[in-house]
Amino acid sequence: MADYREMWKSLDMDLEKHDKLCEVLPQFYEEIYLSQKNRPQGMNYFNFVVSEVHGLRIKELLESRKNNRKVIGSFCVYVPDEVINAADAISVGLCGGSDFWHPDGEKVLPRNTCPLVKASIGAKISATCPYFQSCDLLVGETTCDGKKKAWEILSEYTPIHVMDLPQMKREKDNLHWQDEIKIFIDKIENLTGNKINEENLAEGIKLINEKRRVLKRLYEFRKFDKLPISGKDVLLISQIAFYDDPKRFIEKTNELCDELEKRVQNGISVFEENTPRILITGTPMAIPNWKLHHIIESSGGAVVCEETCTGTRYFENLVDENGKTLAKQIKALSDRYLNINCACFTPNKGRIDDILRLYKEYNADGIVYFTLPFCTTYATEFKKVKDALDKKGIPVIMIETDYGLQDAGQIKTRLEAFFEMLETNKKVAVTK
Amino acid sequence: MADYREMWKSLDMDLEKHDKLCEVLPQFYEEIYLSQKNRPQGMNYFNFVVSEVHGLRIKELLESRKNNRKVIGSFCVYVPDEVINAADAISVGLCGGSDFWHPDGEKVLPRNTCPLVKASIGAKISATCPYFQSCDLLVGETTCDGKKKAWEILSEYTPIHVMDLPQMKREKDNLHWQDEIKIFIDKIENLTGNKINEENLAEGIKLINEKRRVLKRLYEFRKFDKLPISGKDVLLISQIAFYDDPKRFIEKTNELCDELEKRVQNGISVFEENTPRILITGTPMAIPNWKLHHIIESSGGAVVCEETCTGTRYFENLVDENGKTLAKQIKALSDRYLNINCACFTPNKGRIDDILRLYKEYNADGIVYFTLPFCTTYATEFKKVKDALDKKGIPVIMIETDYGLQDAGQIKTRLEAFFEMLETNKKVAVTK
Repeated sequence: MADYREMWKSLDMDLEKHDKLCEVLPQFYEEIYLSQKNRPQGMNYFNFVVSEVHGLRIKELLESRKNNRKVIGSFCVYVPDEVINAADAISVGLCGGSDFWHPDGEKVLPRNTCPLVKASIGAKISATCPYFQSCDLLVGETTCDGKKKAWEILSEYTPIHVMDLPQMKREKDNLHWQDEIKIFIDKIENLTGNKINEENLAEGIKLINEKRRVLKRLYEFRKFDKLPISGKDVLLISQIAFYDDPKRFIEKTNELCDELEKRVQNGISVFEENTPRILITGTPMAIPNWKLHHIIESSGGAVVCEETCTGTRYFENLVDENGKTLAKQIKALSDRYLNINCACFTPNKGRIDDILRLYKEYNADGIVYFTLPFCTTYATEFKKVKDALDKKGIPVIMIETDYGLQDAGQIKTRLEAFFEMLETNKKVAVTK
Repeated sequence: MADYREMWKSLDMDLEKHDKLCEVLPQFYEEIYLSQKNRPQGMNYFNFVVSEVHGLRIKELLESRKNNRKVIGSFCVYVPDEVINAADAISVGLCGGSDFWHPDGEKVLPRNTCPLVKASIGAKISATCPYFQSCDLLVGETTCDGKKKAWEILSEYTPIHVMDLPQMKREKDNLHWQDEIKIFIDKIENLTGNKINEENLAEGIKLINEKRRVLKRLYEFRKFDKLPISGKDVLLISQIAFYDDPKRFIEKTNELCDELEKRVQNGISVFEENTPRILITGTPMAIPNWKLHHIIESSGGAVVCEETCTGTRYFENLVDENGKTLAKQIKALSDRYLNINCACFTPNKGRIDDILRLYKEYNADGIVYFTLPFCTTYATEFKKVKDALDKKGIPVIMIETDYGLQDAGQIKTRLEAFFEMLETNKKVAVTK
């Protein structure tokens, strides 16, 4: 990484603490990512993005801000990036994926708070995350108790606007969400000084749909018997989608997909034959939380799909591009976003339908239900999901784990037993 | 208690398990309540109600149901009892306050679930709570992640209607809550076959306001220097208010208040002079959760007020009785209920104002901030409350505890140190 110390200093960062953070990442990344065999060449771009995660991209943001473009940070896939792009502002995802930030998060939050929320708040108050430091506005939402109440504390440190996501999906809730999008548009207009109109919103919608399409294209390669890319590489790409420049991201991911297409034609797989195919469902994995994928893929499994906010929930379903008035476009946004089936909704049967569908589409052998600790909505929803999977005879294992590595050995043991069971199932199915 | 086994059997209860529950309560109550010295005579009624908690009151409910009156169970002070009473139905509070129900709750909920939610669900699925068994409908609400997702599971066992409480308090949220009250009215009309109109809703409003007034009257006695009643007795009365017949409750509580008036005139106190006066703020205490009050009042403190759902949040602010149309009455209900400052709202500055006001009104010396484990909203809100109290120099201690008694000794030690500090503060104030 080039010397960005002056830049970081200009962002009021705690340089000393930040140095400690920077020390850990490269070795960690080397071990988890660079050690993989037979990776696609196209991953080089994403390696570069990670190596410059606090460098080049921050420099870009800084330069954009000098040209009067605003940077807006968010924490959730319900925040409509289309609006941010329509106002010529830049959107960055801010969820914290490292326990480096927990001690600072615990200064203001209960210890019994979900690791993602604790890391996000800790990243801000420790002034060690240049993304937080580059934001002109943060956007929170009312998706869970932990986040909802954390925004109040975060607002003591930095400006934050909170979108009130409904908790049900009735017609009136859709109208409520349309209202929230309108309020958000006002807020963004005031911040940027740019009026949002049918034209620039249509462009925003097209751009973000394009990002969804390329992610969908990438995920299609995971449906093949021979997997041309590892699950953890796809996870990394999804994580980068939240903060990279969208146009460049689309271009580079398409390039990678061209390469994957050739791999499929040539029957190249990064896994051994008969590796159990795993669908992960549950809570998001914010960068650099690669723990579960790494354990799975170094214990004899392959992750073929993630029904998570850093997976299918982020890109499935496009916003209708045919709306010719702002009102229709806002309705289209509301429809698409309320089609995401987060456990924060009650009831949330759509998520079970999604899991069953994705299990088939990605030809999975078993499901890992992943929750971060203290994520009440996903942990409680496990029962309903398990009941539905049991009815269909689909094997599932629940893994609740935070960002620490203390339990990695135990998880590995549990998963190895699970994979063994899946392999036996497969053989039985073949001999039948 | 008379022999109610046939009645319980008719309610499909698990008699064997229920026997075990019945075994514990009397000794527990004796130890905590009946051992108190110098209790008001008027507490005899409430002793009787407790001794008949699964008996006489259930018999009353059963008889009412034979006369075609419906019984509706709820879990939260936001559910408008006025509507239930207007339809000539009976409202009972169902929150579980005993860890007896936890093993059954944990069969369907994560262990890391708040004790109140776990006990409530466990009480239903174990078929050991005759109140649950007597309900024609349950009413849930979206106040926290734990409850919101638990209703989905509860709905597998019994009919439940969920009211969507907003998470903010803007004008549009008030309209949203009015809508929810209208939907609730429809539901109750369909269930009971009784149409709700201006007249019966006005009666319902008057009745519930009257219950609020008598609780307010009771709480007024706690403002005196010489406290004529213990905190734990008042807690018990508040808990009984949730399930007793409202008219009888009002009458009996008024009788007790008449007695307390005389006690005040005669300077009778149930505490020694200079006992530190404690305001409790935080999560609700469902019957028979008397743990914290008992520890406080047997460690040298007196509880003078509870800023909780089983305290001031239940009875403060009346519904305007002047609405002459259904629409105006519904607006009045919405206004009153949205005046409750639960930590489920964001932001929730009103609660801090309430705490500061009650601290003064009840002439408290210190504050115990109580949260049940895994109550993210109240635990997270602690920081804001503590910051506000620190600014005013008001002493506060945070106690997070469940229904078990394992930590009672540790809490006692912490509280004794806290009270000692409060006494020193008092002496310093006097000598100044």
